[in-house]
Amino acid sequence: MAGPRGEYRKSAERRSQILEAAFAVFARSGYTGSSVNEIARAVGMTQTGVLHHFSGGKMALLQAVLQQRDVRAELLLAGRHGRDFLAGLVEISRLQAGQRGVVQLYTLLAAEATDPEHPARAYFTERFRHIADAVTTAFAEEAAAGGLREGVDPRRAALSTLATTEGLELLWLDGLDVDMAEDIRCHISGFLRTPLVVPGPAPSPAGPAPSTAGAS
Amino acid sequence: MAGPRGEYRKSAERRSQILEAAFAVFARSGYTGSSVNEIARAVGMTQTGVLHHFSGGKMALLQAVLQQRDVRAELLLAGRHGRDFLAGLVEISRLQAGQRGVVQLYTLLAAEATDPEHPARAYFTERFRHIADAVTTAFAEEAAAGGLREGVDPRRAALSTLATTEGLELLWLDGLDVDMAEDIRCHISGFLRTPLVVPGPAPSPAGPAPSTAGAS
Repeated sequence: MAGPRGEYRKSAERRSQILEAAFAVFARSGYTGSSVNEIARAVGMTQTGVLHHFSGGKMALLQAVLQQRDVRAELLLAGRHGRDFLAGLVEISRLQAGQRGVVQLYTLLAAEATDPEHPARAYFTERFRHIADAVTTAFAEEAAAGGLREGVDPRRAALSTLATTEGLELLWLDGLDVDMAEDIRCHISGFLRTPLVVPGPAPSPAGPAPSTAGAS
Repeated sequence: MAGPRGEYRKSAERRSQILEAAFAVFARSGYTGSSVNEIARAVGMTQTGVLHHFSGGKMALLQAVLQQRDVRAELLLAGRHGRDFLAGLVEISRLQAGQRGVVQLYTLLAAEATDPEHPARAYFTERFRHIADAVTTAFAEEAAAGGLREGVDPRRAALSTLATTEGLELLWLDGLDVDMAEDIRCHISGFLRTPLVVPGPAPSPAGPAPSTAGAS
């Protein structure tokens, strides 16, 4: 049962193990404080072995780790438009609440990458632009459908929604009384003629009471 | 002209030089990646010399650096209430736009401190709680004055405003088309019956057009 197919599966498994180790090392030490060597040791390989799977080195490992998060979000939002897309953002926030490690790693890397010299700077700037553009489109679609409140500009609403999402993650990680999904639902609802309704699990009983801030 | 007073002034100058060096080192390497030794070298002192001025070590240096930012904000907000306090938050955002280094350092440290094991964790949690409480009070005062929109909860409005402020700083550092002060003014206005007016310099010509999102 060896041969090319078996080799391929083995290689995919190896990549997956390396990514898991990279995630753990980045989460502990950030990007700047991590090395390929440290990731290799964590997975019981040599540095050369790791570079065989990720020839782009540490930066390629970082991108692969971040893409795991992105792919899930992209899948959830694929084919959705306007109000339905905006509801998807709330669903993503719900998922984040179950992935503290991912959110923490992402927050740390995004902060590191605000340094213009940081190798992941372009990645984060592009990522934020990409999300801001997609959310702008969703608000514009909702505007065309007559669902936006008087005077709301889709671009400002999108940037504000993105900023609030990032900020809520930070406050949530620091133990403040925020409910990421419910708070972002209220935030988006503030731009809409009728509040956003997102079916799914009820807000966590540990969370604060639902806010109606700006929602009506 | 020597004696206690001269000694005191010399010591204050030394502390100020150390803090300047600590700021530069933290901004470059974050808290985790910095050492008292590195800060001492940057200011031409021994580690023992630095610890004479900051006996609490690296953590004391970090707190002193962050307090420099806090003190300015506290002074600006002192004695202000309700709508006037909320306008002060916009004024602080305006000041931040001129202090990229401080904003970047703060963003990095806040992200590092989301790790429950990080020595600055308690500092950031307490700081966020303190700000959230002060902003909640301001929204509650505005509610009592009849200035809040129907259904707006002061606590949710405060947490949302704090989250948006933090997120806007991150997006601004990453070069997105946000205007921190104008965007936060619009955000706060979304909770009020009449938009917040903040006298002072006009929005930067490089910034985006003023948003009226949720403001009417």
